Amino acid sequence: MTHQEEATDPDASGLIDRFCASCKEAVLAELRHILRAHRWNHDALEDLVLDYPLRPAKGLRPALCIATSRALGVAEDAVTTTAAVIELLHNAFLIHDDVEDESLLRRGEPTLQEAHGLPIAVNVADGMFALAMLALLDNLELLGLRASLEIFRQIVDMLWTTVGGQAIELGWIRANTWRFADYRAAYEDLVIRKTATYSFIVPIQVACIAAPASPELRVGLAAFGRHVGIAFQIADDLLNLRDDAEGYGKEVRGDLWEGKRTLMLLHALHQETDEAVAGAAAAILARRRPGSDELHTELRQVAAVVDDLHASGHVDGVGRASVLVALRRAWAARRDADAKTVADVRALSELIERHGGVAYAHAAALEHVRWAERALGRCAPELAPGEARDFLFALPAYVLGRLK
Amino acid sequence: MTHQEEATDPDASGLIDRFCASCKEAVLAELRHILRAHRWNHDALEDLVLDYPLRPAKGLRPALCIATSRALGVAEDAVTTTAAVIELLHNAFLIHDDVEDESLLRRGEPTLQEAHGLPIAVNVADGMFALAMLALLDNLELLGLRASLEIFRQIVDMLWTTVGGQAIELGWIRANTWRFADYRAAYEDLVIRKTATYSFIVPIQVACIAAPASPELRVGLAAFGRHVGIAFQIADDLLNLRDDAEGYGKEVRGDLWEGKRTLMLLHALHQETDEAVAGAAAAILARRRPGSDELHTELRQVAAVVDDLHASGHVDGVGRASVLVALRRAWAARRDADAKTVADVRALSELIERHGGVAYAHAAALEHVRWAERALGRCAPELAPGEARDFLFALPAYVLGRLK
Repeated sequence: MTHQEEATDPDASGLIDRFCASCKEAVLAELRHILRAHRWNHDALEDLVLDYPLRPAKGLRPALCIATSRALGVAEDAVTTTAAVIELLHNAFLIHDDVEDESLLRRGEPTLQEAHGLPIAVNVADGMFALAMLALLDNLELLGLRASLEIFRQIVDMLWTTVGGQAIELGWIRANTWRFADYRAAYEDLVIRKTATYSFIVPIQVACIAAPASPELRVGLAAFGRHVGIAFQIADDLLNLRDDAEGYGKEVRGDLWEGKRTLMLLHALHQETDEAVAGAAAAILARRRPGSDELHTELRQVAAVVDDLHASGHVDGVGRASVLVALRRAWAARRDADAKTVADVRALSELIERHGGVAYAHAAALEHVRWAERALGRCAPELAPGEARDFLFALPAYVLGRLK
Repeated sequence: MTHQEEATDPDASGLIDRFCASCKEAVLAELRHILRAHRWNHDALEDLVLDYPLRPAKGLRPALCIATSRALGVAEDAVTTTAAVIELLHNAFLIHDDVEDESLLRRGEPTLQEAHGLPIAVNVADGMFALAMLALLDNLELLGLRASLEIFRQIVDMLWTTVGGQAIELGWIRANTWRFADYRAAYEDLVIRKTATYSFIVPIQVACIAAPASPELRVGLAAFGRHVGIAFQIADDLLNLRDDAEGYGKEVRGDLWEGKRTLMLLHALHQETDEAVAGAAAAILARRRPGSDELHTELRQVAAVVDDLHASGHVDGVGRASVLVALRRAWAARRDADAKTVADVRALSELIERHGGVAYAHAAALEHVRWAERALGRCAPELAPGEARDFLFALPAYVLGRLK
């Protein structure tokens, strides 16, 4: 059986789910242990630190870290703290991402800022960054100085890289950048920085440090992580466009509302030969998403009242027109005046459809899955057979399988 | 000359300013060096990391770190990186504080979220946290393992403590907590966590670690830092109430708009014997500050147009009343419907005035200044005479001197 066949095994999903579930308990227990070890702090803060981690989620990142460790023969609990730290930092990123994207839902529940207000959400994630660093310092005794310091540096480098990726994406949204000499390269560079590094490359690399794995093996496994990571983000972007994504837990088409430069959208914008159409789509992208306190509806209701009064003769034609102009002016004075509308987002969806954006992105993801499988295949002789290795081989197909 | 006399030296301010200025250049150079050493990242992010640090500010925290080091005989450049990291983290806190408090001004210019949007502001500060950790790892070679790891732990503990302090304050604002068995103790506990630790205690402690200072000296200097820190925050709160604070750089009475529990306000609320008056003040506190896109004004303009139309006969009495009701309903539907008004904030100011809140807080700050001077006096025999020691002795009087 070749590794390609292994990777397209229809049972990949069951294997991944079982392995993740078996890791999740240990990771949550470790997170509680980390909190207990540093609990001089405010109770409310401690509860909120666990809010996102306790919501239903697979825990793919710590499972990847643990699977790689096992396949490399690392002692069972040597990476538990590091895996828990990776999960903690992932959730801290999610909180700040949700604030930055004004997201409403996370894992099927209101985002932290919707539930507890933006100030508390920003602060809780800061606490999670601090707690992650504290836990990594506790690693010193467990892993020895060389490995634990190298892991520390790896994770701190990763924080800086991920923030840099986020800066690029936010910068594109703010400046409404969308023309690129090579849009696929620009997208993939972004995705490596903002997602693949912290979600795939680093969970694998810290296991390599703990092993320690040979430099060649580290390079090979890093390539595997990079390609899986890119495929994962493309699949995630594709899922965001679906109306029917079961248990998706995020806002459908939230990426279009937020103006995210997904591969589908970039492809469609660059394929569009009519400059006016592309320009109109770019203009839509530039509009901010409406705030949750959007007044549009309320002002429309006032306008409807004026219409009724006009019909019943209490307001004459001049009166009606003047009030409507005043209302429109009041609306225009709002910061959200130029917010995206449902029709705007529909127009972007249609542009993507017209230019085969989904098929294009799907093909790109499939390419990365193949590259990932090839990279892992070359590492195979140095990985111990068993469930952990099977997890790694099942991962590429799994990230695309989420689209089925 | 006793230390008390030294501390009330009218020239304290000049001495502090000169010493801070002499440190500032080295600290900024070190920050640029840290950025250069990790510059694989996005250019825009790097510029924004320096935005707050480059604005006019004294740089009291790194200067305190450097002064303590010199007074303890630490080699000149052994703490430069650590001092720069403290300044970097201070500025990262300021960015997130400004986001959390919806502040408009920082150091006389628009806050980062006003200038670049909230998403970029949240992300830039995250980058500064990551960069600070990277710089501390670079410390390893300079200071040796024991001292650099102890400094690392000290600073990471500090991050967790500061976030915890912020969590307490945000929790009080969100739950509108204001009754305390001992309001001064509650306030001082908060201030030690959210300000004194990172601004005074830790800059001093890292110098003690680098020295290394004896455990007794560390305890004595920590007490000094704690008392100066509390006095500093009380003075800062008092400055916020002033209309005439020259070069203050923040929004006057911003604390009242944000609902901050300052010592003046807590004193006034607890001194107020009329439950109805205290309750009304607490109700004001509970209201959020109006958003910058407040529609109040615009809707009033629509109402004025309706009034004119009524006067000119285009809208009859029923029409006018109906439109006004519809407008009021639209306004009530807004999230900011129950926002604080200028009159609300004036009422809080008057409550503070009526109960001598300013005098009470000033007296408390003066007490801490005296305790700080006493704590430092006991450490004096172990501090090398010179400019650095003079800086430490001048500091307590200086933090209150800002009120003159």
